[in-house]
Amino acid sequence: MNTDLYQILEDVRDGKTSVADAEILIKKEPLADLGFATLDTQRKNRQGVGEVIYGAGKTTAQIKSITETLLKSSEDGILITKLSKEKEEELRKDFKDDFRYFEDAKIGIVGKNRKPDGLGKILIVTGGTSDIPVAEEAAVTAEFLGNEVERAYDVGVAGIHRLLSKMDSVMNASVIIAIAGMEGALASVVGGLADCPVIAVPTSVGYGASFEGLSALLSMLNSCASGVSVMNIDNGFGAGYYASLINHMNKK
Amino acid sequence: MNTDLYQILEDVRDGKTSVADAEILIKKEPLADLGFATLDTQRKNRQGVGEVIYGAGKTTAQIKSITETLLKSSEDGILITKLSKEKEEELRKDFKDDFRYFEDAKIGIVGKNRKPDGLGKILIVTGGTSDIPVAEEAAVTAEFLGNEVERAYDVGVAGIHRLLSKMDSVMNASVIIAIAGMEGALASVVGGLADCPVIAVPTSVGYGASFEGLSALLSMLNSCASGVSVMNIDNGFGAGYYASLINHMNKK
Amino acid sequence: MNTDLYQILEDVRDGKTSVADAEILIKKEPLADLGFATLDTQRKNRQGVGEVIYGAGKTTAQIKSITETLLKSSEDGILITKLSKEKEEELRKDFKDDFRYFEDAKIGIVGKNRKPDGLGKILIVTGGTSDIPVAEEAAVTAEFLGNEVERAYDVGVAGIHRLLSKMDSVMNASVIIAIAGMEGALASVVGGLADCPVIAVPTSVGYGASFEGLSALLSMLNSCASGVSVMNIDNGFGAGYYASLINHMNKK
Amino acid sequence: MNTDLYQILEDVRDGKTSVADAEILIKKEPLADLGFATLDTQRKNRQGVGEVIYGAGKTTAQIKSITETLLKSSEDGILITKLSKEKEEELRKDFKDDFRYFEDAKIGIVGKNRKPDGLGKILIVTGGTSDIPVAEEAAVTAEFLGNEVERAYDVGVAGIHRLLSKMDSVMNASVIIAIAGMEGALASVVGGLADCPVIAVPTSVGYGASFEGLSALLSMLNSCASGVSVMNIDNGFGAGYYASLINHMNKK
Amino acid sequence: MNTDLYQILEDVRDGKTSVADAEILIKKEPLADLGFATLDTQRKNRQGVGEVIYGAGKTTAQIKSITETLLKSSEDGILITKLSKEKEEELRKDFKDDFRYFEDAKIGIVGKNRKPDGLGKILIVTGGTSDIPVAEEAAVTAEFLGNEVERAYDVGVAGIHRLLSKMDSVMNASVIIAIAGMEGALASVVGGLADCPVIAVPTSVGYGASFEGLSALLSMLNSCASGVSVMNIDNGFGAGYYASLINHMNKK
Amino acid sequence: MNTDLYQILEDVRDGKTSVADAEILIKKEPLADLGFATLDTQRKNRQGVGEVIYGAGKTTAQIKSITETLLKSSEDGILITKLSKEKEEELRKDFKDDFRYFEDAKIGIVGKNRKPDGLGKILIVTGGTSDIPVAEEAAVTAEFLGNEVERAYDVGVAGIHRLLSKMDSVMNASVIIAIAGMEGALASVVGGLADCPVIAVPTSVGYGASFEGLSALLSMLNSCASGVSVMNIDNGFGAGYYASLINHMNKK
Amino acid sequence: MNTDLYQILEDVRDGKTSVADAEILIKKEPLADLGFATLDTQRKNRQGVGEVIYGAGKTTAQIKSITETLLKSSEDGILITKLSKEKEEELRKDFKDDFRYFEDAKIGIVGKNRKPDGLGKILIVTGGTSDIPVAEEAAVTAEFLGNEVERAYDVGVAGIHRLLSKMDSVMNASVIIAIAGMEGALASVVGGLADCPVIAVPTSVGYGASFEGLSALLSMLNSCASGVSVMNIDNGFGAGYYASLINHMNKK
Amino acid sequence: MNTDLYQILEDVRDGKTSVADAEILIKKEPLADLGFATLDTQRKNRQGVGEVIYGAGKTTAQIKSITETLLKSSEDGILITKLSKEKEEELRKDFKDDFRYFEDAKIGIVGKNRKPDGLGKILIVTGGTSDIPVAEEAAVTAEFLGNEVERAYDVGVAGIHRLLSKMDSVMNASVIIAIAGMEGALASVVGGLADCPVIAVPTSVGYGASFEGLSALLSMLNSCASGVSVMNIDNGFGAGYYASLINHMNKK
Repeated sequence: MNTDLYQILEDVRDGKTSVADAEILIKKEPLADLGFATLDTQRKNRQGVGEVIYGAGKTTAQIKSITETLLKSSEDGILITKLSKEKEEELRKDFKDDFRYFEDAKIGIVGKNRKPDGLGKILIVTGGTSDIPVAEEAAVTAEFLGNEVERAYDVGVAGIHRLLSKMDSVMNASVIIAIAGMEGALASVVGGLADCPVIAVPTSVGYGASFEGLSALLSMLNSCASGVSVMNIDNGFGAGYYASLINHMNKK
Repeated sequence: MNTDLYQILEDVRDGKTSVADAEILIKKEPLADLGFATLDTQRKNRQGVGEVIYGAGKTTAQIKSITETLLKSSEDGILITKLSKEKEEELRKDFKDDFRYFEDAKIGIVGKNRKPDGLGKILIVTGGTSDIPVAEEAAVTAEFLGNEVERAYDVGVAGIHRLLSKMDSVMNASVIIAIAGMEGALASVVGGLADCPVIAVPTSVGYGASFEGLSALLSMLNSCASGVSVMNIDNGFGAGYYASLINHMNKK
Repeated sequence: MNTDLYQILEDVRDGKTSVADAEILIKKEPLADLGFATLDTQRKNRQGVGEVIYGAGKTTAQIKSITETLLKSSEDGILITKLSKEKEEELRKDFKDDFRYFEDAKIGIVGKNRKPDGLGKILIVTGGTSDIPVAEEAAVTAEFLGNEVERAYDVGVAGIHRLLSKMDSVMNASVIIAIAGMEGALASVVGGLADCPVIAVPTSVGYGASFEGLSALLSMLNSCASGVSVMNIDNGFGAGYYASLINHMNKK
Repeated sequence: MNTDLYQILEDVRDGKTSVADAEILIKKEPLADLGFATLDTQRKNRQGVGEVIYGAGKTTAQIKSITETLLKSSEDGILITKLSKEKEEELRKDFKDDFRYFEDAKIGIVGKNRKPDGLGKILIVTGGTSDIPVAEEAAVTAEFLGNEVERAYDVGVAGIHRLLSKMDSVMNASVIIAIAGMEGALASVVGGLADCPVIAVPTSVGYGASFEGLSALLSMLNSCASGVSVMNIDNGFGAGYYASLINHMNKK
Repeated sequence: MNTDLYQILEDVRDGKTSVADAEILIKKEPLADLGFATLDTQRKNRQGVGEVIYGAGKTTAQIKSITETLLKSSEDGILITKLSKEKEEELRKDFKDDFRYFEDAKIGIVGKNRKPDGLGKILIVTGGTSDIPVAEEAAVTAEFLGNEVERAYDVGVAGIHRLLSKMDSVMNASVIIAIAGMEGALASVVGGLADCPVIAVPTSVGYGASFEGLSALLSMLNSCASGVSVMNIDNGFGAGYYASLINHMNKK
Repeated sequence: MNTDLYQILEDVRDGKTSVADAEILIKKEPLADLGFATLDTQRKNRQGVGEVIYGAGKTTAQIKSITETLLKSSEDGILITKLSKEKEEELRKDFKDDFRYFEDAKIGIVGKNRKPDGLGKILIVTGGTSDIPVAEEAAVTAEFLGNEVERAYDVGVAGIHRLLSKMDSVMNASVIIAIAGMEGALASVVGGLADCPVIAVPTSVGYGASFEGLSALLSMLNSCASGVSVMNIDNGFGAGYYASLINHMNKK
Repeated sequence: MNTDLYQILEDVRDGKTSVADAEILIKKEPLADLGFATLDTQRKNRQGVGEVIYGAGKTTAQIKSITETLLKSSEDGILITKLSKEKEEELRKDFKDDFRYFEDAKIGIVGKNRKPDGLGKILIVTGGTSDIPVAEEAAVTAEFLGNEVERAYDVGVAGIHRLLSKMDSVMNASVIIAIAGMEGALASVVGGLADCPVIAVPTSVGYGASFEGLSALLSMLNSCASGVSVMNIDNGFGAGYYASLINHMNKK
Repeated sequence: MNTDLYQILEDVRDGKTSVADAEILIKKEPLADLGFATLDTQRKNRQGVGEVIYGAGKTTAQIKSITETLLKSSEDGILITKLSKEKEEELRKDFKDDFRYFEDAKIGIVGKNRKPDGLGKILIVTGGTSDIPVAEEAAVTAEFLGNEVERAYDVGVAGIHRLLSKMDSVMNASVIIAIAGMEGALASVVGGLADCPVIAVPTSVGYGASFEGLSALLSMLNSCASGVSVMNIDNGFGAGYYASLINHMNKK
């Protein structure tokens, strides 16, 4: 597409097109074609973000095809989210040793993780063991994007000493992802203890009046601690991505 | 009403009424008149509960009249809830030194509190200072009903050390009332630390997604700590009453 | 971990560490390691609570392993919640006669119940027969924790005489657990009749505008009777645990 | 408008219009003009329902004007709902002794009530005293429409003996209107005791998780008693009207 | 139990028990045992209501056993709701020709319907064909309870002429049950046309913002027509029962 | 039915019926029979709308039967919505080459589409690929009703350049259907760019706090752009139908 | 800003800037500056839409200033929404006879309406008289934008004959705006009768379970009639604007 | 309190207390007193965060007193949120030129802002002008905490060119705060354009189905763009604080 703009400009230079006509041509052209394509490249260069394929609702064939296309134009790894166990087996046949699968996280990766080059560690804490799939989605995503990750699972507030015994990790973390279902109180407590940004992820873990994560979501939004922001329910990928953005603030 | 039943029985004894007719008469009679009236007396005797008047929606004249009637039949104190500042001034004129008013709690008391005779102390904790009116409603109610009350306000989880500095009180309490708005996480943390029954009261303190106390209510219902039960939003009186019931388990 | 603190203190005593250095060391150390570990022991000693394993989301192998570890350090019984029929068969093979399974309650117990040593009986009432699984979860839990339990099922308010015919039980109970779905009115009626603490448990029984237990939950929270507190929807375990806490107030 | 149809038919009879043309004319004419106008007259004749003016959002002048128009064409009384105290004073000036005002009900009536000619009595019960305005709206409406009304206020389920002491009234009623806020349990209990149709009206009385009447509304919709139908929150007029319909089933 | 009361009275008559002692004995006895048992009999006598078994959640064996017990004490028919196709086959083996099954309504009946003896016809209208299962539950229930039923299905307001073509039925009905999902507008339109009580039943038919019947439920509660009351979502049985109550107002 | 009216008029003409009697007869007759039947024909003539069968909840046999009846009285095509893959195979056997099936849209068509005769093109845009089934339901419906359709799928606002690259299509469209799940922001952005009517369709695509399409629905209703109206969640058919109405405004 | 692009092109033509440099310059420049500014002009030219000022939250001084600026660059009228009575008096002083104020609609207009040049009439129907402010906002907006408007207020479905008596208007309308609160059934009935696009506007009129317009909103979204789209609650302006867009489809 | 620990250690050193006794003493002591007090100091040192007083619900006297206390122990500025215009006048009398008031933001500051020392600029964008108070709360907070802030207000998505004309600012920002009410689409669009962390703040701006900010909140949580986290409705302070945390990642 750049060709088009380039061509128009050459024609102006060569006197083949008047300035007035060129102005109209450029305005008539689909606007995005003029420059937006570079946006994505810019973003990737700055952030070193590898490619991400949302695997949900895509067939194995579609995933394969997209992956192969991406591999041609880049040496970055490719992360595939929401990848079921069935699909991973087929992908392994194709990409063999280049392919890694993370069952808890339901993530597949073709190629390598970016080397950890963040400001510090990302600490991921969960309230219970049932929150682990969401936590692993965040963890594997963050690791893929070049972050060192520390996990502290099952440190919910019902036994506050479990969390307090991790105070060193909390104080040393660059970013913390706090993941909890049920009443979601973990985010507030962590927010009160930490001096770094906390990303809260409510999960749909619970029953009855947890209303599929609504209880934890509202809790986290109302956190009385400053320094806490919130992701959608069960959005582990988003939290890992956001934490990586913050942990790479030195790269801008 | 007892007279009616007594009369029927006398008539049976005296042969004025046949057994069959008496059976029908008793069954036809409004059922509650036979014995329920004694229930309230029984309850009061066992629990030593003084009288309670719900002041909301009653005129000063109505409150005065009810109070005077109650005073005739009992020496117990009388607690009036939801009593506005304006009404208290008029009541003071009538009941003078017998009358005490608690402004934060919006409670008026005519006569004396029951002497503290519970199993132990009731500890009342709040997340913030805005929760104090609800807390005081609970505290004054519990004191009126014969309980020693310890207050630990503004110990919300955003600064967990404030709560931890009260660990002795938490460990020594007989019952704990945990009152919080916003995300309501206080109840879970207290529930995790304490080994006594915890009564959680969500408050309508907060804004935005606190939805008038809904966020705190859901949080508390989903508490991951065992040993936590929940009251209606802002129901300080109910919490004080319930805590007193538990703290007087020795009186049954 | 205690060793660490002990060691530091020995070093102070022995002049190997200055007081100032020791102060820093202690503060730097993960706080919880200093003493919190004792909390759980304290709690158990006071309450005589046996161990509880949340079976939901755990494999049979995990449950077995945790159970065996617990058995080594304690002679108390172990209660496993949310245990499906399939898993119970495997556990029976291992623990044989030590193992009891309660199908309605979906609870398995390894070892013995605590001997009943509460203040009185816990009465469990339900509105209908569909509420029985939640009621049994509460009942088996309370029995395990050392309580005498009386069951009065299917006494919903649509036929008030069913409940009234249990008035003796209601008046004699130490604590009452009122379990109901649909409109949840049972809690208010029981609360009005009883003079002991009532624990209300809404269930997800119903259809249409019961919205999976929301209707009963709101009903119970708004109970016009004093002396009623509320648990999460379907939380039979929580109710049994809480009732046991109240029924053992003499043990503090 | 009837004239139009009549005229067309005369023209057909007189040969001035062909049958085919008449068919088209009749079909083209606004359909409702053909006969619907008689519907309202039919309804009123059968039910003896007087006129009703919804006073909310109407000026005193508008109300006066409508009232005067209605008075010209009918000798029936006229009931004006949602009439504020201020407006009633102005109306009294005009209609003098013909005008009655019911302050609790916020209803004004010009002219007479229909003579009671229903099948039996309508019993109106309320859970508390705060429900009385809604109850009086129902009661005054029902009386205006020709029903004998019995009131039993403040008989909520928290003191079940209050309701049971009214069992005779409950058993003798033709229709019962059960009005309650908070948890709305009254409807289920009354529904379980009565053998006549029960009309449940949730009120917005309550606070916190009563959510402006939602709690009572859901309760009543989920009533486990058969024989209970539900009105909108605070809809006293609708309940009085519906009860009157049922109590006049003999008039069809 | 009546024996107990009778016995006490005989003892009073015979001088074996003093009047004072008898008074205490009667009051101590479970209150309901004194007379409530007669309530159900009274209700049935007046209404001629046959027995109803809620089939949901009951095994075929349980249903059989209850049915047989009921058959011994009464000649009335027995209606079983929420009866699945599988269970009906087993029941047919036992009760043979005495058993009828209504597949749309998911209702089984052992024995005969009550002979139609109501004031008039019950008209049942539905918005669409998907509402028919709920409508048939209402229809079969009403027929069982002694009512003549007229069905007018699929007359939703999107084609108002379908409903208008049934105006004769609407005007002649004694009671109308209006059943609709989606926007539930049918109830208002029917309520505006009819001069008899209308019972509105929202159904869970629809998708998206119908939110499982919530949209229709709210619609019906807010009906601008007087003379409309509302049942729970999908509650066909309740509507049939309520309509029968109204249609038998002459039997009181 | 017309016969009836015609007959009455003939009888008036012939003096067999008096005018007064005729007036009563006509009014008594079901109102809709007089003329409404012509409404549907009128509508179809003006809009050239073919027949539509809602396939959901209908058996293949029912669909076949309705289709055959329709085919007898009209040469228009017939569109069947919500038609599953299984049913399509059976229908193909009967209608052979006359039958087309659109798998994404779950639509079957017997006969031909109307020839495109609208004012311009209908542009259908979607936020993601998961919205395509709803989009295709809209597209196939609009094409069937005689509209030229342009598809621009997967142009969600997270990569605004994708949408901007379609600016020519946006500016040239006669009507735009904007379909999106998750946050539904597409509708506002399209509404801000376009100068034609935009029809927004929220989809149930998403997870967590998308609450089955509620998030997108609210977003679209609150669009800050003028010129946007909203359909029910997932209502592709409705959007296609509505767009066609607008695109045929010249046909009135 | 166009100057910038023009200047760059001139520099290319004149050899002052290389093609490569120009390409970078253009891409670096804020994208919207290249052509979007013309969008608004295009839109206005095509639609002849006058200017609109959202008056809510603006001071009279701000409104005056914006109005004066707009008047300088255009001869079109200016419509000011949400204009309170107090502000209108001040504006009248400035703009005198050029200024018209519509009290029900809360709209002020400076200058003239566009001459009616739409395809046909816009019919606006409301369920009740309380819906009139929203209806007038729609009506005045549509008239300002060059449409002939017919009003048919207070034709709610509770008295269906009121609406049916307007069938001619319904059949002749180009677009219909159906406005209703409470149960919002009007939209479905109108949608079933009309053959033109219907725009449904829920209003916040009602009480109790109308939940500030939610009931009407859901009703309208679930309309069983095809050809109905929905606006936000109380959005009269949006409906008038959208209707005008449709009524001017001939102008594209 | 440190004294206590220090004292215990001295006593150990001096042989006055045995190691075993000291261990018990330390564990018995309120845990938080051992070290937590230092936490707040640590946090402030690292982040250079000045003091913050939540002004809501505090009297002017309380605010003065707290401010004076803080001034004694620190030279940092003090920020007071939710400070009404009335209170600011009183505070000005005391603190004179040291006091600045920001009316839109409702923030008062005593003393100086921290010098800007962040990684880059914080860009604050809003959808409309009504969102400005929330935006200013964020902006003044961020400036106080040592950040350079760029404002781009009223760039909502309904006119996407307004936002696109700010692309340079978007691309250069270190962190972006996107603030919008109504449909909240701004966050997704900004998230799609930017390569830095975006903090989304829903506002309660809107009406009808915006439900006091719920619509915008859900929108933002469901953002299809990666790199967006969400704050509570109207939480400008929280957004400013969180943005500052991220913008000072270099200070750790």
